Amino acid sequence: MTKKYKIAVIGGGSSYTPELIDGFIKKAPELPVSDIYLEDIEQGKEKLEIVGALAERMVKKAGLDINIHLTLNQEEAISGADFVVSQFRVGGLDARIRDEKIPLKYGVIGQETTGPGGFAKALRTIPVIMNICKDIQRLAPSAWLINFTNPSGIITETVLNHTKVKAVGLCNVPVNMINYVAQVFEVEMERVYIEFAGLNHLVWGQKIYLDGEDVTEKLLDILITGKNFTMKNIPDLIWDKDLIKSLGMLPCPYHRYYYMSDKMLEEEIKEASSEGTRGEVVKNIEKELFKLYKNPSLDIKPPELEKRGGALYSYAACNLIDSIANNKKDIQTVNVRNNGTILDLPEDVAIETNCIIGKNGASPLTVGHVPAKIRGLMQAVKAYEQLTVEAGVKGDYYTALQALTIHPLVPSADVAKKILDDILRQNKEFLPQFQG
Amino acid sequence: MTKKYKIAVIGGGSSYTPELIDGFIKKAPELPVSDIYLEDIEQGKEKLEIVGALAERMVKKAGLDINIHLTLNQEEAISGADFVVSQFRVGGLDARIRDEKIPLKYGVIGQETTGPGGFAKALRTIPVIMNICKDIQRLAPSAWLINFTNPSGIITETVLNHTKVKAVGLCNVPVNMINYVAQVFEVEMERVYIEFAGLNHLVWGQKIYLDGEDVTEKLLDILITGKNFTMKNIPDLIWDKDLIKSLGMLPCPYHRYYYMSDKMLEEEIKEASSEGTRGEVVKNIEKELFKLYKNPSLDIKPPELEKRGGALYSYAACNLIDSIANNKKDIQTVNVRNNGTILDLPEDVAIETNCIIGKNGASPLTVGHVPAKIRGLMQAVKAYEQLTVEAGVKGDYYTALQALTIHPLVPSADVAKKILDDILRQNKEFLPQFQG
Amino acid sequence: MTKKYKIAVIGGGSSYTPELIDGFIKKAPELPVSDIYLEDIEQGKEKLEIVGALAERMVKKAGLDINIHLTLNQEEAISGADFVVSQFRVGGLDARIRDEKIPLKYGVIGQETTGPGGFAKALRTIPVIMNICKDIQRLAPSAWLINFTNPSGIITETVLNHTKVKAVGLCNVPVNMINYVAQVFEVEMERVYIEFAGLNHLVWGQKIYLDGEDVTEKLLDILITGKNFTMKNIPDLIWDKDLIKSLGMLPCPYHRYYYMSDKMLEEEIKEASSEGTRGEVVKNIEKELFKLYKNPSLDIKPPELEKRGGALYSYAACNLIDSIANNKKDIQTVNVRNNGTILDLPEDVAIETNCIIGKNGASPLTVGHVPAKIRGLMQAVKAYEQLTVEAGVKGDYYTALQALTIHPLVPSADVAKKILDDILRQNKEFLPQFQG
Amino acid sequence: MTKKYKIAVIGGGSSYTPELIDGFIKKAPELPVSDIYLEDIEQGKEKLEIVGALAERMVKKAGLDINIHLTLNQEEAISGADFVVSQFRVGGLDARIRDEKIPLKYGVIGQETTGPGGFAKALRTIPVIMNICKDIQRLAPSAWLINFTNPSGIITETVLNHTKVKAVGLCNVPVNMINYVAQVFEVEMERVYIEFAGLNHLVWGQKIYLDGEDVTEKLLDILITGKNFTMKNIPDLIWDKDLIKSLGMLPCPYHRYYYMSDKMLEEEIKEASSEGTRGEVVKNIEKELFKLYKNPSLDIKPPELEKRGGALYSYAACNLIDSIANNKKDIQTVNVRNNGTILDLPEDVAIETNCIIGKNGASPLTVGHVPAKIRGLMQAVKAYEQLTVEAGVKGDYYTALQALTIHPLVPSADVAKKILDDILRQNKEFLPQFQG
Repeated sequence: MTKKYKIAVIGGGSSYTPELIDGFIKKAPELPVSDIYLEDIEQGKEKLEIVGALAERMVKKAGLDINIHLTLNQEEAISGADFVVSQFRVGGLDARIRDEKIPLKYGVIGQETTGPGGFAKALRTIPVIMNICKDIQRLAPSAWLINFTNPSGIITETVLNHTKVKAVGLCNVPVNMINYVAQVFEVEMERVYIEFAGLNHLVWGQKIYLDGEDVTEKLLDILITGKNFTMKNIPDLIWDKDLIKSLGMLPCPYHRYYYMSDKMLEEEIKEASSEGTRGEVVKNIEKELFKLYKNPSLDIKPPELEKRGGALYSYAACNLIDSIANNKKDIQTVNVRNNGTILDLPEDVAIETNCIIGKNGASPLTVGHVPAKIRGLMQAVKAYEQLTVEAGVKGDYYTALQALTIHPLVPSADVAKKILDDILRQNKEFLPQFQG
Repeated sequence: MTKKYKIAVIGGGSSYTPELIDGFIKKAPELPVSDIYLEDIEQGKEKLEIVGALAERMVKKAGLDINIHLTLNQEEAISGADFVVSQFRVGGLDARIRDEKIPLKYGVIGQETTGPGGFAKALRTIPVIMNICKDIQRLAPSAWLINFTNPSGIITETVLNHTKVKAVGLCNVPVNMINYVAQVFEVEMERVYIEFAGLNHLVWGQKIYLDGEDVTEKLLDILITGKNFTMKNIPDLIWDKDLIKSLGMLPCPYHRYYYMSDKMLEEEIKEASSEGTRGEVVKNIEKELFKLYKNPSLDIKPPELEKRGGALYSYAACNLIDSIANNKKDIQTVNVRNNGTILDLPEDVAIETNCIIGKNGASPLTVGHVPAKIRGLMQAVKAYEQLTVEAGVKGDYYTALQALTIHPLVPSADVAKKILDDILRQNKEFLPQFQG
Repeated sequence: MTKKYKIAVIGGGSSYTPELIDGFIKKAPELPVSDIYLEDIEQGKEKLEIVGALAERMVKKAGLDINIHLTLNQEEAISGADFVVSQFRVGGLDARIRDEKIPLKYGVIGQETTGPGGFAKALRTIPVIMNICKDIQRLAPSAWLINFTNPSGIITETVLNHTKVKAVGLCNVPVNMINYVAQVFEVEMERVYIEFAGLNHLVWGQKIYLDGEDVTEKLLDILITGKNFTMKNIPDLIWDKDLIKSLGMLPCPYHRYYYMSDKMLEEEIKEASSEGTRGEVVKNIEKELFKLYKNPSLDIKPPELEKRGGALYSYAACNLIDSIANNKKDIQTVNVRNNGTILDLPEDVAIETNCIIGKNGASPLTVGHVPAKIRGLMQAVKAYEQLTVEAGVKGDYYTALQALTIHPLVPSADVAKKILDDILRQNKEFLPQFQG
Repeated sequence: MTKKYKIAVIGGGSSYTPELIDGFIKKAPELPVSDIYLEDIEQGKEKLEIVGALAERMVKKAGLDINIHLTLNQEEAISGADFVVSQFRVGGLDARIRDEKIPLKYGVIGQETTGPGGFAKALRTIPVIMNICKDIQRLAPSAWLINFTNPSGIITETVLNHTKVKAVGLCNVPVNMINYVAQVFEVEMERVYIEFAGLNHLVWGQKIYLDGEDVTEKLLDILITGKNFTMKNIPDLIWDKDLIKSLGMLPCPYHRYYYMSDKMLEEEIKEASSEGTRGEVVKNIEKELFKLYKNPSLDIKPPELEKRGGALYSYAACNLIDSIANNKKDIQTVNVRNNGTILDLPEDVAIETNCIIGKNGASPLTVGHVPAKIRGLMQAVKAYEQLTVEAGVKGDYYTALQALTIHPLVPSADVAKKILDDILRQNKEFLPQFQG
């Protein structure tokens, strides 16, 4: 008899959940799942029930024998799980909106995962993920943690260096970059291969291949003619032609925050004062989504979910789980311990890179040195990330201040301190590690 | 009979020359010099003659048997020299003023050595230093090049990686930091030892010792009470208390451009619109200095020279030459090939660090890894420097664009391009490598 | 229309060739080959014709449309080839026999690829492979060199560092280790995965997996009960129980030369004085094989070939070519540039390790640091290999002497010198680089 | 009032002690010592009293105010000490003689510090040094441990990685190499500088300078003409001319065990069967020495002590203590944490290299990469040393077996096991860590 898997979804009440359920339904033939525990906290109960009911209808419609469990009990969800998927958001969208607005007050980019916004999110998330890991070690020691909670690289690094949990960090950016290339060349995604190197939300496609042929130049020539791509949550600014020519690589959508900081900031300020920050927009989308979800005749993932962002999230997550479960040894782009893969970064940090995925997790392909033009930024952001992990784990004010001070998007120690103090004040209830 | 040395000074007509002559006079008992060749270009002839006459009076007054030669012939100056001191400035102060003003037009810090200003200076200087090195290899192959021309780290890296000349890069910042500590504790400089690590104009004092006792904390406590120090050319902004506390090290004066970019920019803008940029101020100081120098009764280094900046320059330069000539094996802080000294930087780059100085040049003391809080910035700036060297040697537009784009003080590729194009246009006559 | 491939086999008259032809026949459905050029030198003409005729019969019997070409013209063979397979042996078996006997004279292990024997073989091979690469660069610049000529690691490193040819080094040891594990557990080879790390003929299986489960301990427990395996050319000495327990890894058969040098030497001396060295034994086997090959009714790979050694050679070679040609992205164990894969070895050396194989060649999986117990030996042998490459390319006596002196199997510089002088004398005609 | 120092000498009853006392007497003007505690164990009481009385007579004769204390109480000796000098020998000369004889039984070099003999000595010493360090941490936390106990590199690495004691490892080999060069050129030692790199008893002089001029070639030309040098305890075999030519560096005397293992083994066997092993010879020398020491009219270091070996030991030890105490910042060759100094070795191992010595201990000069010809052996021996430290600390049989197996002088795992078992049996009383 084949093994059937128990999946625990932390943050199960998320609007993304139907996407994830849809993924498991599609993978059902090769990835047999017996139980999915959707877990959330007390405040998320209502959303959990709505989304949970939809999940049940979806599974039923698919004719599958998967038990959907709804619970507010983390231990129950995790106990004996084979995979723990983390997609929670500490403080919800309100916290995200604050993360976006605080930096803007000081003339700094306010973004969910990049810059001071991501920093605040990391500080809130670290104590929660540490607690989840404690439960995994105790109640499901052989489980794999599939971390999708942002900032995914920082959270994965925290887990890898501060717990014994087996973890892989996931992000939908690389898979969307592959998808973009596939669309440009009008081919299946399977025929595209990108030599990625970098960090989460700071990953470069060093070389692009179509059926094994190097098409980097060809792709970049198309990119600069305006056939653009981005993520739902990032303003879709056109890439500068000379920047791309001089870079000679495919940047990720988030690189706009670094390569065109000034315009992105302008854009953000403009948006904040019109339709609202991205968080505010998402809050409205979510409201609409949950209205849809409530509809008892809805039994598939609604197409409207796409507006929410997170495209291909379930594709990435289910592929990852499938390859671990079935020891597939295929190549996927995930967040893992560097271990010398990129020689220009410390050995014990998380990087986002191409890995072989199998029963033992993710094994990266050697990258070696990266060229100076991407090395400096990668190293600067990684130093920030390491300090953020340390600050988040220890609750140390000075380490937090250094983290923000050296972030490339923060203009000075003075501004760093103002933002930090504001973050600490506005997130007090979520930052136990700083209260003492 | 003891060996007597021939010194060639490239850029001999500089207003700094009396400082250097004063240094050789003081060192005379241990460092016997027979000939000093002050070399300059046609446009500097008048200044060369003024400063050369003063140099002759100084030597005479000191009762020393040193022959001062004035020449516009680089080959004559270099031929057979034991030490070649480079202190030239391509394009003179007018070029410097342009370097300061171009970035300011685009809202970016305009500074002689840091940021786009230093970048422009590097591009102008690289073809000239390469030419000097060609002459040294041919006419004085065993000579030591003592490079003081800024940006000293970038120029030294160019020489180390693209010529066979034996070179040491020099800067007066470390010795001024030692002097500052000595003044704080009211002791002789010899009793102070600083564990330096970093790059030229981006060097941190990781630990400060007085008579071998660690006084880092004590010093920083004094630093934050306002007993400040800076270089003549850097606005003397007070360090933020929490920044220093969280850093736990002694920053160099130039760190202000990174740690307080916003305020420094404000300050620059204010100054530019009142007394003028630093270059403009210096231009006036120089005029006054040369008036003084002309006075035939002046036969010592005039105290007014101090305003010019470059404090302790001759102290540093003459100590370095003395220790090489006399195989002294003492510790000085200079720019050398990294070679693994700082494990977080490539092996073939120039770093500024503590070295043993002897007949075979500068041999660095192992540093190992540096902490994340200073690592990221150091790495980012080094990547910029490497690209600048490459752009300067090859004259490659795209490499130059990447260099500026990734500089931490430049907000976007767009602004980088505007500044770059402006630099290339305004410096056309000095950038033969880009005219191909 | 699908692309059909041209294969050039350098050393085409080898007794292994039917093995290789058999491989291409089996792979025919997915790897369409139009032409196989079997190339050899004048002295090998007779063998080439025998083996070539057999190859033609084999292809015919298989009903395939592959043209077999026999040639003594290297340029003709290489020109326009897609894959160049190198399996030549400079000096033939007579040279091998000398390689085995010279060291034995001085009380040192005499082996085809390991120790002074392999060193001599490397010196003979390097000028020839350099010449082949010159032709590839000129006549088939996009061809892949599949190097099977021993010592495969050293030859691959020579090609990678001293030519621009795209090369992958191949050895049948890893695939035989996988096969051994598969036999022990009575499963298909595909279900076995070994985390290899090391050098050619010095590769350790750090961890062994069956269907993704770690079975290292289980396997080693079986290994020490005597269920042994080895290569045809290596005396089948039983592994010491405590050695294996303390090692905790699967050694390769060649490790016996290091872990049981004394017994292996004894065994060699005994064999040399009875049935002859392995080379002498092989010489007889080859005679018998070629008798068989001549039989015009033979049209398949004869089972007697197995005695010759080289088990699974064509399996490995054809899999490699198939995965490159078809961009398969599967994992195979080959010799590639280290590039930081094993952090304890220089970046520019050849290592034997698990790689993803595709159209762009072999891309290694990150290994990181290896434990001290295998690190020292790996590093010592690699240093020997690097010096051997240098000596072989430059023909430098002193470098050659250092290479042999530091080889772990050579007891002293004095013995190294005696062996080296004997090698140089007896191989004079094959060592043009030393005749300067 | 100047600080006066308390020195604790662990193994104070050693025949070397008069050498050390002589050193302190000579250094008295700059290094004021108030108290020297000579500590030894119960079995060494008689020798301690003899040597202690001589020490008192020496001090008195010198007219110095140093109190000599004799004690069997380690805590008393260490408490409040400024420097703890460790020169003890666990098991005394009888253990050493066993260390020499056990390997010889199995055809392997038997030497006090190199190979299995040094391995046995390390295992015996590690528990004792750990215990001393425990006392230092408790009773003299700011004391410097000056370790002279052999194998000095392994013991220093143990202390650096497994305790918090500030330690510098010392050996008289480098200073004797300098002395040898000085004698060859008939100059003062101060004029000679050697760029050392390597491990304790495996240190190469990569370059030799006289007054800053590179005289390496000149020196090696003299070395190969037979003007040899060695340590008292190492057979004085002449270096092979071609070995030295190909090496191009100055080997240390102990390199003979690696570069001429066969002859050294012969020599040892010959000596063992005639005058006895070196340990046996030393035992007789010591008897004679102690007879001399007893003579109440002896009040200086007797010239006969020179035969004992350990030349320049007190010179090295007192210079080291002097430079630490007086923050001299001069260059000495000692054993310290690598920290990237030699890029080809792990960061956390002990190396023997040139360091700046001051109040904060030893700060190494960057070495970078070493050439392949010395790298492999250095790395192989270092791997052995790391395993020895681990085996010695943990008492793990398998780690010990791997340590001996990979030692370049041990021919096989089988022989390693025989030697190991013999060592463990014959040293049972001294190896508490293996009795678990």
